[in-house]
Amino acid sequence: MSPKITVELLRQLRQVMKNSKYITEPIQAYIVPSGDAHQSEYIAPCDCRREFICGFNGSAGTAIVTEQHAALWTDGRYFLQASQQMDNNWTLMKMGLKETPSQEDWLLSVLPENSKVGVDPWIIAADQWKNMSKALSSAGHSLVAVQDNLIDVIWQDRPARPSTKLIALGLKHTGLTWQDKVTALRGKMSERKISWFVVTALDEIAWLFNLRGSDIEYNPVFFAYAVIGMSNIKLFVDSKRLLDPAVREHLELDSPSKPELTIQCFPYESVYTELQAVCAALAPKEKMWICDKASCALTQVIPKSHRSAIPYTPLCLAKAVKNPTEIQGMKMAHIKDAVALCELFAWLEKEIPKGTVTEISVADKAEELRSQQKDFVGLSFPTISSVGPNGAIIHYMPLPETNRTLSLNEIYLIDSGAQYLDGTTDVTRTVHFGTPTDYEKECFTYVLKGHIAVSAAVFPNGTKGHLLDSFARAALWDSGLDYLHGTGHGVGCFLNVHEGPCGISYKTFADEPLEAGMIVSDEPGYYEDGSFGIRIENVVLVIPAKTKYNYRNRGSLTFEPLTLVPIQLKMMNTDLLTQKERDWVNDYHKKCRETIGAELERQGRKEALDWLIRETQPIV
Amino acid sequence: MSPKITVELLRQLRQVMKNSKYITEPIQAYIVPSGDAHQSEYIAPCDCRREFICGFNGSAGTAIVTEQHAALWTDGRYFLQASQQMDNNWTLMKMGLKETPSQEDWLLSVLPENSKVGVDPWIIAADQWKNMSKALSSAGHSLVAVQDNLIDVIWQDRPARPSTKLIALGLKHTGLTWQDKVTALRGKMSERKISWFVVTALDEIAWLFNLRGSDIEYNPVFFAYAVIGMSNIKLFVDSKRLLDPAVREHLELDSPSKPELTIQCFPYESVYTELQAVCAALAPKEKMWICDKASCALTQVIPKSHRSAIPYTPLCLAKAVKNPTEIQGMKMAHIKDAVALCELFAWLEKEIPKGTVTEISVADKAEELRSQQKDFVGLSFPTISSVGPNGAIIHYMPLPETNRTLSLNEIYLIDSGAQYLDGTTDVTRTVHFGTPTDYEKECFTYVLKGHIAVSAAVFPNGTKGHLLDSFARAALWDSGLDYLHGTGHGVGCFLNVHEGPCGISYKTFADEPLEAGMIVSDEPGYYEDGSFGIRIENVVLVIPAKTKYNYRNRGSLTFEPLTLVPIQLKMMNTDLLTQKERDWVNDYHKKCRETIGAELERQGRKEALDWLIRETQPIV
Repeated sequence: MSPKITVELLRQLRQVMKNSKYITEPIQAYIVPSGDAHQSEYIAPCDCRREFICGFNGSAGTAIVTEQHAALWTDGRYFLQASQQMDNNWTLMKMGLKETPSQEDWLLSVLPENSKVGVDPWIIAADQWKNMSKALSSAGHSLVAVQDNLIDVIWQDRPARPSTKLIALGLKHTGLTWQDKVTALRGKMSERKISWFVVTALDEIAWLFNLRGSDIEYNPVFFAYAVIGMSNIKLFVDSKRLLDPAVREHLELDSPSKPELTIQCFPYESVYTELQAVCAALAPKEKMWICDKASCALTQVIPKSHRSAIPYTPLCLAKAVKNPTEIQGMKMAHIKDAVALCELFAWLEKEIPKGTVTEISVADKAEELRSQQKDFVGLSFPTISSVGPNGAIIHYMPLPETNRTLSLNEIYLIDSGAQYLDGTTDVTRTVHFGTPTDYEKECFTYVLKGHIAVSAAVFPNGTKGHLLDSFARAALWDSGLDYLHGTGHGVGCFLNVHEGPCGISYKTFADEPLEAGMIVSDEPGYYEDGSFGIRIENVVLVIPAKTKYNYRNRGSLTFEPLTLVPIQLKMMNTDLLTQKERDWVNDYHKKCRETIGAELERQGRKEALDWLIRETQPIV
Repeated sequence: MSPKITVELLRQLRQVMKNSKYITEPIQAYIVPSGDAHQSEYIAPCDCRREFICGFNGSAGTAIVTEQHAALWTDGRYFLQASQQMDNNWTLMKMGLKETPSQEDWLLSVLPENSKVGVDPWIIAADQWKNMSKALSSAGHSLVAVQDNLIDVIWQDRPARPSTKLIALGLKHTGLTWQDKVTALRGKMSERKISWFVVTALDEIAWLFNLRGSDIEYNPVFFAYAVIGMSNIKLFVDSKRLLDPAVREHLELDSPSKPELTIQCFPYESVYTELQAVCAALAPKEKMWICDKASCALTQVIPKSHRSAIPYTPLCLAKAVKNPTEIQGMKMAHIKDAVALCELFAWLEKEIPKGTVTEISVADKAEELRSQQKDFVGLSFPTISSVGPNGAIIHYMPLPETNRTLSLNEIYLIDSGAQYLDGTTDVTRTVHFGTPTDYEKECFTYVLKGHIAVSAAVFPNGTKGHLLDSFARAALWDSGLDYLHGTGHGVGCFLNVHEGPCGISYKTFADEPLEAGMIVSDEPGYYEDGSFGIRIENVVLVIPAKTKYNYRNRGSLTFEPLTLVPIQLKMMNTDLLTQKERDWVNDYHKKCRETIGAELERQGRKEALDWLIRETQPIV
């Protein structure tokens, strides 16, 4: 991977930072956040501004360019990748390390007095704006909204914003009509005396209207905003997309069943002016919800006296708790996904000795096998297919120049997933096709112990996910090891593979308590830079747990793995496992064999079935 | 325990809430926080305003009185106690339960439109003021500062503010002179370009000046403020206290060694006007630190442009990391404390069968035995001495009307500690003098497993205490049990038994990472209302840990127990312990026997020594 050469781009950017055509007064620094106007994690090519300016293409990171400096902040998943993708005009700021300054502190240390720092108000979230603005003004600087995006100004051949075909999902896949979802949402609004709600997150809009798109690779969403009132539904979306009769019928555009369930459609770009009009007509005490992660630009349209900024929206929470139809769909999707992976591993065992299998060819093969499964739509994120040292790059994506050949001598890590009409998958397995070293097995076993500690954890109702994070690390910590990423994220149902408001992380974000029906990943790891990476990831469903006692009738929860792909026995040092952990492995493999075995048999995939049976032998 | 009758008091308070003698406009609600003007947890009798109005005397709780309602918020430690101490004019708001509204939400639900809510600005912390004020004004109400404390207005015979003798501590006890501490503090200030620091927390002032007092029972602090500049030291304290020649010499009041280490003394009450004068003379860019938990009144003296509010102060952090002298002192204090407790338990075994030992008499006996130890100053908190069902009241204090007799049939829990000139102790043991039931043993063993899980935890440098909290609960959770309090708190060195900025709790407050030299408690529990309480508490020192590997050279930490009192073997179901846990118990008891045994021998306490040897037999 060779770094992007950014000398000329930085020169141009610094020029426009002083150009009165774009800004009223010169700015001394320009912030380039990661997201789009919806604060999406995965973004469309037209929105990859941070990658354009610095070369780093991971899913999280903020670039700041001053007259003298250029720096990029990203987290532990991306330290290696960012350092390889950026040239030496850039300083990598490793977030989470004690010595790394925050963006605010760094700016204060490098800015001349009375500096102006610019940012595109559509790209920065309102809460980030607030924090940054406060820090800067406390030191005599100021944060200014630059209406023209300065990256777009210097970006020749910037791709156009996509507008793909919409898919309408029926009750069979959603379990609830969009009308019922709007009604439930209005119930929550009226409970809290809220009369309007501005929906800005793309997955919330897709979930609410039971629509999917493909504007952003891997995420079945589409560019839109929605503004929901107690008797209004305003949808802002490219009008061409609404010509499709199936979509018109689904949304009842031509014959609404009830006046309060009539959708008014507006062009995507008119959300600003339309929201202004709604705000102008508000009664004195009316309140409007908007997520504090919505764009600063849109947030500031709402007068402060009417604005109720919330850390996550009722749609985000409703979407996180899957209904029975969604749970059933997620289970089906995971069975199909496991079939594809069993096929893949059986194929790999045969092919690797030939020396022709590469990281890229496995990723392609995995996609091919998944695409043979019913209702396959696409991948849910770029496949991480990594051999040996590449495995230590936590969010590695093989490129022709980094592509390694799989062998009998190195650990292979594959983290992959797909979108099916009935659900979204995300699974990581770490395997060795030869003989792993004792050290590799030891590290793998600590990671496995952490994976099991979370998966088998029993905890009271009301527990937040971050309280489970250390369970995943205890075995590693005991030996002085650790991993620099969270343990789990929420997973959407035929939606984003990363979704809030729940997760399992040492970072205590505003997570909501785990509830039965929520779906998260469980993915501890261990990464030895320059040597190998290990991660074991299942998607797990939160379910009620039966316990011997029931303190204060609170009830207990635990997890049920939805991912049913064998965990390689060869990588385990079973002496390091307790009896309880051995039982967990055996129970898990029994379930894999029964559930996936039956499906492999049904699909007539004999070789994969043989492989599955071999890989799920009980350990003693 | 009979509740306090509050009908008449509430009537009087509601009257002054409308009385123009004390307030310009009538207020519809009055908030009575728990603390004093220094936001102390333990408070002097003159500051027990919340107890005065509602009867509840626990260490944490906020009362709010409206025209129609009176409600008290407190946490899980105090649910039972508060419900017993308050009459039915009061509604108990159980914090931490999902259905309990926050103070803000509750106010919004009961207040008439455009209400004014009053509070004494000296008693409410600046951050609480800010949150409350924001919530109220977002709903059209307002928070107003009432200069006269309305509780004081109706409180006849309110005690006077104490002004006890000061003790000057020498290097032998502190390890650092106050001059060195001031210099180190100025180093931190200059690092962050801060020119003044307003010290409001009583334990920070006591620690900084190496002085102790006894204004507040159990906490060796004294009422004072300090304002530290780069070349000024302003101390605000009752001037009578400075007549003592030892104190004058200690503070170098009559012959300062250096101009920048000259202490200017002012009356305690003049802090407001003196701080105003300092602020008036500030240069435009000068910044002043004040803790965001300082009083709203004092915080607002500092103009916003000069104010740098911090969640905890550099003194708080410096105080938390004990120096070698302090660590040595804490170890000595815990040895002496263990001697007293071994004596106590040996005595109890003989006395209980006589049927004359009560909760109160044990507490008295424990104090008597402690007072025989060298450099004993007093207790560090009210002894929790509780039999059977009283043990389920987490912060129970025996009173004549609740006093139970110890017997061979019920569990006995004693949570106690002392102040010695060299250190502060806090230890809980739960014991049975007859035959515990299987269920009692089972619960005890789960609590013990949690205690060991924390005490033996190995974790990387930089880990915050809240990430260890779930380790203490996992065994309880597995069986559907839990406890509604944090697992540990910081412990001062001959200072407050509860101190920040570290702790081990599911609540994620702004805790700083644990560091070698910090001292915290490890005290999981289990409480069965109406039956018994179990808690096992040691004070533990954070120390470096040796691990097999050392990921990214981060280094690891673990805990060393300072408390060395046997944990009752009879209460353990050893079948439920793993081999590692059994080894921990045996190692711990070996250390108790060796260290405390030697001291018991030295002190010639033969019966206690026999008891210790019997109670520290290894388990197999």
